[in-house]
Amino acid sequence: MRLSFDDIKSEIKRVFVKYGVSEEKADILAQIHTESTYDGIYSHGTGRVARFADYLKKGWVDAGAEPVLEKDLGAVRIYNGNMGPGVLNALVCCEAGCELARQYGIGMVGLKNTTHWMRGGTYAIKAAQKGFIAIMWTNTESVMPPWGATECRLGNNPFVMAVPGIGDEYPMMLDMAISQYAYGKLAMTRLAGKQLPMPGGFDKGGKLTCDPGAIEETRRILPIGFWKGSSFSFMLDLLGALLTDGIGAADLDKVGKGSCGGASQVMILIDPSRITEGEKMQETMKKAVAHLKSAALDEHSAGIFAPGDDYKQFHEDHDKNGIFVEDAVWEEIRSL
Amino acid sequence: MRLSFDDIKSEIKRVFVKYGVSEEKADILAQIHTESTYDGIYSHGTGRVARFADYLKKGWVDAGAEPVLEKDLGAVRIYNGNMGPGVLNALVCCEAGCELARQYGIGMVGLKNTTHWMRGGTYAIKAAQKGFIAIMWTNTESVMPPWGATECRLGNNPFVMAVPGIGDEYPMMLDMAISQYAYGKLAMTRLAGKQLPMPGGFDKGGKLTCDPGAIEETRRILPIGFWKGSSFSFMLDLLGALLTDGIGAADLDKVGKGSCGGASQVMILIDPSRITEGEKMQETMKKAVAHLKSAALDEHSAGIFAPGDDYKQFHEDHDKNGIFVEDAVWEEIRSL
Repeated sequence: MRLSFDDIKSEIKRVFVKYGVSEEKADILAQIHTESTYDGIYSHGTGRVARFADYLKKGWVDAGAEPVLEKDLGAVRIYNGNMGPGVLNALVCCEAGCELARQYGIGMVGLKNTTHWMRGGTYAIKAAQKGFIAIMWTNTESVMPPWGATECRLGNNPFVMAVPGIGDEYPMMLDMAISQYAYGKLAMTRLAGKQLPMPGGFDKGGKLTCDPGAIEETRRILPIGFWKGSSFSFMLDLLGALLTDGIGAADLDKVGKGSCGGASQVMILIDPSRITEGEKMQETMKKAVAHLKSAALDEHSAGIFAPGDDYKQFHEDHDKNGIFVEDAVWEEIRSL
Repeated sequence: MRLSFDDIKSEIKRVFVKYGVSEEKADILAQIHTESTYDGIYSHGTGRVARFADYLKKGWVDAGAEPVLEKDLGAVRIYNGNMGPGVLNALVCCEAGCELARQYGIGMVGLKNTTHWMRGGTYAIKAAQKGFIAIMWTNTESVMPPWGATECRLGNNPFVMAVPGIGDEYPMMLDMAISQYAYGKLAMTRLAGKQLPMPGGFDKGGKLTCDPGAIEETRRILPIGFWKGSSFSFMLDLLGALLTDGIGAADLDKVGKGSCGGASQVMILIDPSRITEGEKMQETMKKAVAHLKSAALDEHSAGIFAPGDDYKQFHEDHDKNGIFVEDAVWEEIRSL
């Protein structure tokens, strides 16, 4: 179905308040979930409302907890998330990181003991909309085997890079998990009776496969770039723990509450306006996009996308037709 | 053949001096090329000596140029590399970045107008050996098509993350190009009459293939993670240009001197000793490695590697048997 931003937001807010979040905080959380939905990231917008409610119900998220500044180290700050709502913790830390970048040119905030931040891109977009360049990631519980292994010991550790948009446009952003496909994507593809467009993991026989069901069975999903992504994911996990004074997958797995078990998040913010003059920055961005899109398309191409193009397409559609919400997802939210 | 560190270094130094580098600078450059060889990165150690000599001969690298500090912006500094030797420029900037991190907790150096830095890991290792955590990358000329295209518009943009080693051990480091395989790896595999272990690009028919020759023909090498690496590579290129006040692939391609045409390099250094107490940092690292390696091996596994394990294996072999140098490579260096 198609709904307005306000309709979606107020329904989500109602649910969060019902599950013990204050009016004020529920308003912010509902805003973020609705923004993700508006950007087309349904899985982390409307698609996560029931799950967040479940976190609250189980006591995995402390609705009233606030992030506390533990260390103030020049251009670096360390916050303790105190297991409060991951979205609210991350918003506070992103704002703090932007202040540091404004003051020092670059700033880093390490956030430990936090819970699921939902869509990583949320914070990078906020920062980019204020003119900052953002590099951020979170570590997560293990969902992916290291290269050469069959058992999960690596998180998918979403990694985000964003720059302000060209002119008034939406920021350009990379927001990627280090797994090739999310388990949600595997399930959706299987339910649709389809195959993955590119191999996504190993089957029982240890063969690379495009069959989503076969990968769900082994849980041997692929890191991007095979051995490269395996090491990348490990480093994101380790740096996550070290740069926040927090914990990594080894301890998250012991806690057994997924990313709500005290994930560690790193936010690096940089102020490009000090480095490059505004007009030159615009020219550099335009030139990079034009260069990218000047390549000849391949035989099956749906076009060449610059990071952020997908969001613009969703905005256009949602502005024209209302924001898409899957019927079943809406029913679930209403029933909560 | 097997040679001593000093034998390799002095021969490389001789070549660089012959091609116009000062004694003092040639000594540093030869040291770095030999260190890369000792670490087992032959392609960027002994394997790049002839190519660097060729850069000097063509005038692509200005042997006498020095990097100049152009902007001093708190925890951020911008250097102009003035097309001097990429290795020397990057060493100066890495040292500056470490000083910033010592002072502010985090520091960033943007280096523009530089030439090929050879092995990106060189600088991250130096920083990690001083106790810093490093995140670095360079942009490069286009060598890879964007996802959905057949023509190269993306660099391989090596991306590096390093942390100090456990105890006295070598740093843990990820040093990866965003292409799945280097062209050098394709050529070596083809010459050995072998297939790639995992698909590395597209053949003429637009099919994913493990045949290195078929990929060399189309130049349609794969980014890691397909569409994900395509966007990651684009962002590294763009951020490279913006964070250094420099240029990206669009302009590098016009210059036509590969990465010597004025590449842009970003170095972010962080001082973890302020964030995490030393003993806890050691424990966190040990725990992460033990967790990684506790997974059951797959049917074809050569073991689970933590980032940096490969270097340790090379060190052990090279310490025992002398440093490996391919006969043909050594002959070429000797003939220069």
